[in-house]
This record gives sequence, structure tokens and C-alpha cells, in this order.
Amino acid sequence: MPRSVTVSGTYTVADYLFDRIAELGVRHIFGVPGDFNLGFLDTVLAHDQLEWVGNNNELNGGYAADGYARLKGFGAMVTTFGVGELSAINASGGSYAEYAPVLHIVGAPSTATRKKGGKVHHTLGDGDFTHFFDMARHVSCAQAWLDDTSAPADIDRVIRTMLAEHRPGYIVLPQDIADVPVYRPDEPINQDEVRRHTTSSGALKAFAEAAAEFLDGRQATVLTDMLVLRVGARDQLINLLDHCDLPYCTLTWGKSIVYENSERFAGIYTGVASPPATKDAVENAERLIAAGVEFTDSTSAGFSMRINPENMLRIDPGKVTVGGRGFAPIAMADALDTLTTIITTDATVSPHPLKKETVSPTTEVDPDTPLTQNELWTIIADWMPGDTLCLADQGTSFFGMAQKPVPDTTLFMGQPLWGSIGYTIPAALGAAIGDDRNRRPIVLIGDGSAQLTVQEIATHLRQKTCPVIVLVNNDGYTIERTIHGPDQAYNDIAPYNWQYIPKAFGATDDTALVLDARTPNQLREALAQAEQATDKLVFVEVHTDADDTPDFLATVFDAIKASGSQPAGE
Amino acid sequence: MPRSVTVSGTYTVADYLFDRIAELGVRHIFGVPGDFNLGFLDTVLAHDQLEWVGNNNELNGGYAADGYARLKGFGAMVTTFGVGELSAINASGGSYAEYAPVLHIVGAPSTATRKKGGKVHHTLGDGDFTHFFDMARHVSCAQAWLDDTSAPADIDRVIRTMLAEHRPGYIVLPQDIADVPVYRPDEPINQDEVRRHTTSSGALKAFAEAAAEFLDGRQATVLTDMLVLRVGARDQLINLLDHCDLPYCTLTWGKSIVYENSERFAGIYTGVASPPATKDAVENAERLIAAGVEFTDSTSAGFSMRINPENMLRIDPGKVTVGGRGFAPIAMADALDTLTTIITTDATVSPHPLKKETVSPTTEVDPDTPLTQNELWTIIADWMPGDTLCLADQGTSFFGMAQKPVPDTTLFMGQPLWGSIGYTIPAALGAAIGDDRNRRPIVLIGDGSAQLTVQEIATHLRQKTCPVIVLVNNDGYTIERTIHGPDQAYNDIAPYNWQYIPKAFGATDDTALVLDARTPNQLREALAQAEQATDKLVFVEVHTDADDTPDFLATVFDAIKASGSQPAGE
Repeated sequence: MPRSVTVSGTYTVADYLFDRIAELGVRHIFGVPGDFNLGFLDTVLAHDQLEWVGNNNELNGGYAADGYARLKGFGAMVTTFGVGELSAINASGGSYAEYAPVLHIVGAPSTATRKKGGKVHHTLGDGDFTHFFDMARHVSCAQAWLDDTSAPADIDRVIRTMLAEHRPGYIVLPQDIADVPVYRPDEPINQDEVRRHTTSSGALKAFAEAAAEFLDGRQATVLTDMLVLRVGARDQLINLLDHCDLPYCTLTWGKSIVYENSERFAGIYTGVASPPATKDAVENAERLIAAGVEFTDSTSAGFSMRINPENMLRIDPGKVTVGGRGFAPIAMADALDTLTTIITTDATVSPHPLKKETVSPTTEVDPDTPLTQNELWTIIADWMPGDTLCLADQGTSFFGMAQKPVPDTTLFMGQPLWGSIGYTIPAALGAAIGDDRNRRPIVLIGDGSAQLTVQEIATHLRQKTCPVIVLVNNDGYTIERTIHGPDQAYNDIAPYNWQYIPKAFGATDDTALVLDARTPNQLREALAQAEQATDKLVFVEVHTDADDTPDFLATVFDAIKASGSQPAGE
Repeated sequence: MPRSVTVSGTYTVADYLFDRIAELGVRHIFGVPGDFNLGFLDTVLAHDQLEWVGNNNELNGGYAADGYARLKGFGAMVTTFGVGELSAINASGGSYAEYAPVLHIVGAPSTATRKKGGKVHHTLGDGDFTHFFDMARHVSCAQAWLDDTSAPADIDRVIRTMLAEHRPGYIVLPQDIADVPVYRPDEPINQDEVRRHTTSSGALKAFAEAAAEFLDGRQATVLTDMLVLRVGARDQLINLLDHCDLPYCTLTWGKSIVYENSERFAGIYTGVASPPATKDAVENAERLIAAGVEFTDSTSAGFSMRINPENMLRIDPGKVTVGGRGFAPIAMADALDTLTTIITTDATVSPHPLKKETVSPTTEVDPDTPLTQNELWTIIADWMPGDTLCLADQGTSFFGMAQKPVPDTTLFMGQPLWGSIGYTIPAALGAAIGDDRNRRPIVLIGDGSAQLTVQEIATHLRQKTCPVIVLVNNDGYTIERTIHGPDQAYNDIAPYNWQYIPKAFGATDDTALVLDARTPNQLREALAQAEQATDKLVFVEVHTDADDTPDFLATVFDAIKASGSQPAGE
């Protein structure tokens, strides 16, 4: 077990908390210091398994912890009371919506100060210290305000709930309580037990029988999505795919969790905006095996999927549904393993025949003319090296990349449900560190989005994560111009000198390479340099027209508008 | 009355809302566009009295609207659902704590989308669209989710409550509701009536009698604070001071609302951390007239004021207390006017004798040696030109300036209760615009704080507010080093190349002057240049030691620690 090097010589609540966090494999704590958390940050610095990663502000800290949690399975951030925690609460909303278990630890006024009440700084001045706790309830699955009697039990409860629900937790740690002596935990939390949903052997048996009957003699397709990764059942999914010959697709939310460079990969399903072969594979298969699938307005082009539930075998967290009939409790991993057994032994399932598409040859454009968005994303996808973490911000970047295959060793990350622009710069920081710096982060982001969180480039430099940041400079919120007001002033932004941004945030010629590309040839050259400069932050400013968007975006938006919904892209 | 130039040819809910806002004298709307608010932003652009000021992110937009509201008496910002509004919610907390009436208008999914539910982007994905409304309740005094039947009544209710309580309001405007036709309002909201608390003539008469008796034959001091300004009673306060010869003080929160360059000004009261003459004037006066005073931990050095309530005449919003006996309802303006009459006609009140302090001559330092914080703030105070808005961030800047006099035409602005670092860069933007650009903004901020909101420098440049930004580069969170962990890694920050920051955010030699000062002489020279360059953003990077702080900070912190509280300065 990890052992906190106790600061005070006594084993305290702070020691217990950070030991529990370290137990889960967490090695980095994100956030911003504040006068109510400085004391227990000493515990973080002194811990032999933890490292403090200070962020430029709390929202960025929250995004970084979210990126970390998506890779490491658990993340943690520390902020201060009121001002700090509220600045991060949008990030917590994203972690909640998109199942990233980030523990938000808030340093709070001492118990004595709270009991005295009064106009204490970082409060609303009304003597009520519970406002922010109540706000945090909405974006966390478990909460605790630690006190001197039940702190260890509360810490364990919050962490266990987070592990089970894959969502953020919230702990308020008053300065005095951090120093209260407690006993060391006797043993680590059994993560496997907590993370895995309970499976009833009876339910599993009944499911197996129903599934065999349901699938036998049928043609099928597999559709997967993000939740498979989040609940830790990706290995079981890959095993299933390895043991069958069925075609498979993902939604954009789950892009890259299955190998996209396979004959059997049928593409990214996006409702009516899907490529014809993908749409056919999902909607016309006799049986659709849907694992961890969540349809959002953005990923389904306005809920435009046309899937007959009677043909579906749904594997959701904790529950399986076969043609409308439910079986629970069954852990996703168990359901997938059972399905592998059925398909390999009990039932004859054949692949839904993929309708090979004739790929129309790309019109050769003059590689020295101004770049278009269609060319931009094609060139980036063609270039994309393996062993990378590709983060596409929710805008033209995400939609531009959605239908492009990425290497099998690349993890694609976006935020299509929460859709908070600016997310990817800090999230890439956390993801790279959470991936133990094994894979290089590549950030694809527009100028409008980058403005929200741009200063976290300084932490990339400080942490030497060496990202490639492709900044699409198209003079404003292009995705919004597509939705409404193409020439309206609110879609313009303050113009930056992007070429100076890395230098302003601390880069030198030794630590960063800053490039500029206006044509296909210049972009290819810049990306080739980026790939070589593995020891630097590489910032590639790419210029496209303010109104230019990738074709896929228009397809999706048309479908969403037709559905009466509103398109995503803040 | 202002007239919205209707976009659609029909007078809509959006027209009504923005007409009501324009009626109050508001001319600028802050915020960030998003797909759920683009439609009604057209109404803002088309309005003949309103201008859109896009911000770099929502937190900065919220701070800017807060600064605007502090000058203009009312402010407004627009964000999008979930992601946008939550990013701004820390700013709303500050506006609530510190009485800045900012109306937060949130663009929301259409009523049809909400009724259908489902995983809509910018929601938590649970089909519940009310989470953020519930969160906003904590930081607003009135809320409304507009619908097609009661939108005008709800808009008026929220605005009236804000005017009466001087605090933020929150309105959710679904896209479809923005377009619903309504009738134009018949007449403007009567602001004077709503803003001014009701006064009972009976209560006022009883107060006058009690006050005359309480004050007659006594020596007295006046202590004022921020709330006088917020409730719009500053004219009545100045009139009172003009008609009497009493000494007067403020707390730091209300610094500069009374003239500080007067023989009668007795200084800034900060509990035990006050200068001796100030402490004596407040605590030993036979009678203390306290107008709009709020004691916070930071402004009272840990609630260390020693004031006998039996000697106090308190004028609070809506209520007056004379030696412990309350009179209500009485508007602050009426109470101050009545007090002026009493002091000039009915009662003989003499000034508490000010104990003149022997100002110890400042030790002459070599003006070419490295700057210290004590010298820094003295030089800035000596230089401070009139007709300025001086915003000091909550850190060494605020504490460094707290005891320094500012010119009578300068408004000093800080945020000592909420204390959210980084506030001043965006708040200065809003304040300058809210002041109709009459006074030049001067921002005093440390490097640690500036990192949180630095990108709003781009909007200063775009809006040509020509601020002087004094950036204290002392390698991290110095105020926190004072509190705890002087050498701990969490108080270090990512190093910026501050000299390149303005250029990176769009400055040219024509629009900005960037200077660097390491000695007293260099600082004086830089400030002299800054004063001349009135048509430019001037960025003065000042270097001080990481551990160096102004003496006053240590005095306050020692007092706060002695009180068992924790010092401010996130």
C-alpha cells in the first residue's frame, strides 16, 4: 500500500485521503492553491507517490483532471472554497455528463470559522457555508463535508461511489479537519469489486439462453460507444471482436476504442449523417449488438437513428436487453464475455454483409492554393502518427475528424455531449500525464475555442508534455457562423498574434517550434516537422476561410435542423 | 423609451428583455455566443442603444459585466446553456457577495427539445434541464425561466428585485421563447421607486428624535463603506460630510467613496491593523456614525474591530440603528439626509479630535537598487493620476494600496469579500466601458493572479480601453507564501514571458507600450511614460522578490491569524 509521508508525524485525515487516491493508481493532483488548501497541499508534496501539477486557473485544472481520469481511470483536483471550486464547476459538469471520475477536493474554512459565521472571504457573506456544496451535488455522484468523526468512512464512500458510477465526487476538507489524526486503512479498496457491477448468475444464465436464441442463424453488426471504455470493459469488447467476424461501428463519442483500420470496420455511425454503408450496417442488420451505446443529439445527428429495438441486443452498464427483454444485474464485462462464448460455441451468427462503397477519388487540388477545411482534416488524418492521443475540440475540429480513421494505437478524445469549447488544451495536458507520457498529445482546435483556455499552454511547456497543437485560425466562431449569423459581429473574436502565443507563455526555441501553414503543401511540411520535433511543443497555425467548414459538419447540422433540434458547438 | 429595432418585424420577448435592460441606462452586453443564444444576440446587435462586447471566455465576461455594473448601476451578460453559464458562475458569486447587479441571460434549448428530453448537448445527459437553474439560485436574488405566457412579467420581476437588492439576477431564455410576440411595455420601470427602499415617515421621525438626543453634545466620527455606493446614496453621504466637520474613515471595501485628500480624512480602518489615529477615531469616538458598513474578515483583520455598539449609529440599507435601537423601514439616502439636518440644526455634534501622527520620514533608498513592495506601492500611489479607475487584485496589490490615498477623482475597486484572483483584468474592461470611458483604468495585479484571466487583455485592445496594467512579476503566489509554504512548489507558477503577452494578444507598437521596471527609478520612468501614452494599452512589468510583501499585509495577516481565522488571498 502507498504510504503517505506524514507531514506532522501523525497520520491525519489528509494522509488518509491522499493514500486512498494513490491506491487507485493516481500519481498526479491538479488544481490551483488557495489559502484554505495550502495546509493539505503539503501532504500532496510530501507523498511519495503523488505529484502536484499546478494549473493556470481552476477551469483548466478541472479539464486537465478530466483528461487524466479518462486515461488513468481516476483523477483528482484541489481548489479553494467558493471562488476556486466554482471556477472549476463547468469542468465537473463535463466529467459528470461524460463519465470521467474526478474527485474534486475543496479546501474550506476551519470548523471554528464556519461556526462563528460572518462575512468570511470566499463566502457569499450571508453566514451560510453550504451554498457551494449544494451546487456541487448536481455535478457529482457522491459528496462529503469531512468532519472529525466520520472522515475515513466518508472518503471511502465517495471514492467507492465514484468507482461504481464512473462519475465525479466532491469532498470538502476544512483546514482543521485535514490535520485530525486517524488510523491508517487496514487494506486498499477492492477496486475490481467496486468498479464491476454486480452480476447475478441467474440473470447471466437467462441472458445467455435468450441471446443464443436471439442471435442464432442471424446476420449481425456490432455498434459500440464510449461507455465500454469508461466502465473498463474494452478488453472484453476487443476479445469479442477478435473471436467473431462481425462488422463493427462506433459512434463519434466512442471513436477509436475499436480498431478503425480493419476490413470489418464499418465506419462511424451518426444517424442519417452516416456514410451509406455504415447506416446500412447498423440500421439494416438483422441483429444489432450495441455495447455501451449512448445516443446524444450531436452523435446521432439529432436523434435520427432508425433502429428497430426488437432487433437490438443492448449491453449497458449493469443491464442487458435482448429484443426488449431486460436482464439485470449483469456487469458489462460479464455480458461481453458471455456473448463471446455464445457466438463462438452456442449460436451461429454471421456478419451483416458490408456494402463496400466506391470511394470517389479525391479531386486533386493545387497543393499551393489556400487550404480548405476538407483538405485540412484529410491531410491531418493521413499524417496522424500512431501512439498519439488525438483531442479534437467541439467545433469544426471534432466534426472534421469524426469520419477520418485514426491509427489503432491512437486514442481519439472529444466531448460531444457536454461540448464545452476550449476543453482540449487542458484536457490534453491531463491525458498525456495520465497516459504516463507514453503517447504524444495532438490537439486540434479553432481560434475561437482556444481563446477560452489558451494559457494552459504554459503548463504543457512546464510539464514538457510536448503536444502538437494545430490551431485553426479562421477569424472567429466558424461553427456558429454555420448555425446562425455568418456575418454577425458576435461571431468575430479578438485577433491574437498566434505566432507569439507559445513564446508569451514561456516557450523558447529549445522548447517549442512554431509554424504557420496556409496551403496543403505548407501544412504537410509543418506536420512532417512536428512529427520530428518530439522533444518540443509544436504549434501549427493553420489558416482557413471564416466561412469554410468540413462537409460532414453540414451533413450533420442539416440533419439536426431537420429534426427540430439545435446543433452543438457553443 | 428605448426602442428595440425588431429583427423579425414583430415585437418579441427578446425585444422586451433588451428594451428593459436599455431603459436602465445599460449600453453594453457582455458574454460569449453559443448555439442556444445566437438567435437573440441578433436582437442585441440590432438594438439601437445596445452594443455587444464579446469576451474571451465566460468567466471573464462575468467579471467584465460585474465591473460594468459597479459603475453603471446595472450590467448584463449572455452565455449559453450549461457549459457557458457554469463557466461564469464564479463571477456571479462575486457579484452576489459584493452587490453588483448583473443580469445573467442564458440561452437554452427550445421548449420542444426540453420536453422531448434525451441526451441533448450542453446538458448532463439525464433529461433534467433544471440543474443549472437550481445552481444559479444560490448566486442570484431572482430567477426566471421564460415561457410564452408570463415572460414580460417575469422579466420585470427579476429586474425589479435586482434593483431593490443590488444583486445579480438570472434569466433562462429558450430560443423559441425569444421569438414569441409580446406587447411593448407601456412605460419604463420606475427605477427611483424600486431602487430606493421604502421609508416610513413615522420611522424617520422617530429616528430623527432618537438621533438628535444620541448625538447632541457628543464628539463623533463617521465610518463609511461600500454599501453606500451600491445603494446609490453616495451623494447624500458627501452632502452630510460637506455640512459637518466630523472626521471620517472608510474600510478598504469602500476605499475612495469619500475624499481621501482632506485634513478630516482619518484613514482606512482595518481593526487592529489600522494606523493608530484611525483606530482611535473609530473605536474611541463617543459616537460612531457607520454608514453602509460591512465588516468582513479581510477588511477588519479577522473581525478585530473593538467598537461598542452602544456608541454606534448604524445606517444600513433599509434600516437605522441608534445605540442598539432599530428604526425601519428607512432608505439609506433618507437616513443620511435626515442626519444632515440634525447635525446642522438640531444637535450639537463636535468632531472627535484626530490624533495627528508624526509621519516618520521614509528612509531614502537608493533609487537604482531592486524594488521592494513597500517602495512599489508608495511610488504607484505618488504617481496615481486623477480621473482613473484603480483596480487592485486581491493579493499584495490590494493590501499594498489599501492604506495609500488616491486622488479624489479616482475610484478604487477591489473584491475583498469574494476575493477571486484574476478579477481585475476583465473587471477593468467592464468598468472602463461602464464609466463611458471617462476615466482610465489602472490594473494592479500579481503574476499568479493574472494567469487566471490574462487573455482578456485581447478585449482591452479590441475595445481600446487603454488601461495601464502594472504586472508584479514575483515568481508565483507571494501572498500565499506569506500564509503558508513560502518555498513549497504549489506556490510556484508556470513562467510567462510577460514582455510578449500584449503582442501575443494582438497588440502592435501603435496600440500598446510594454515596459519593464526593476528599480524605483525605472518604475517612476515607466509610469511617467504610461501617463503620457493615453491612447495605448500600457503594460508595466515590475519585478520584486518572491517573498517580499508590503508591511501592511503582514500587519493584517498577523491580526487575522491571532484571531484564529484564515487570511484572504486565494
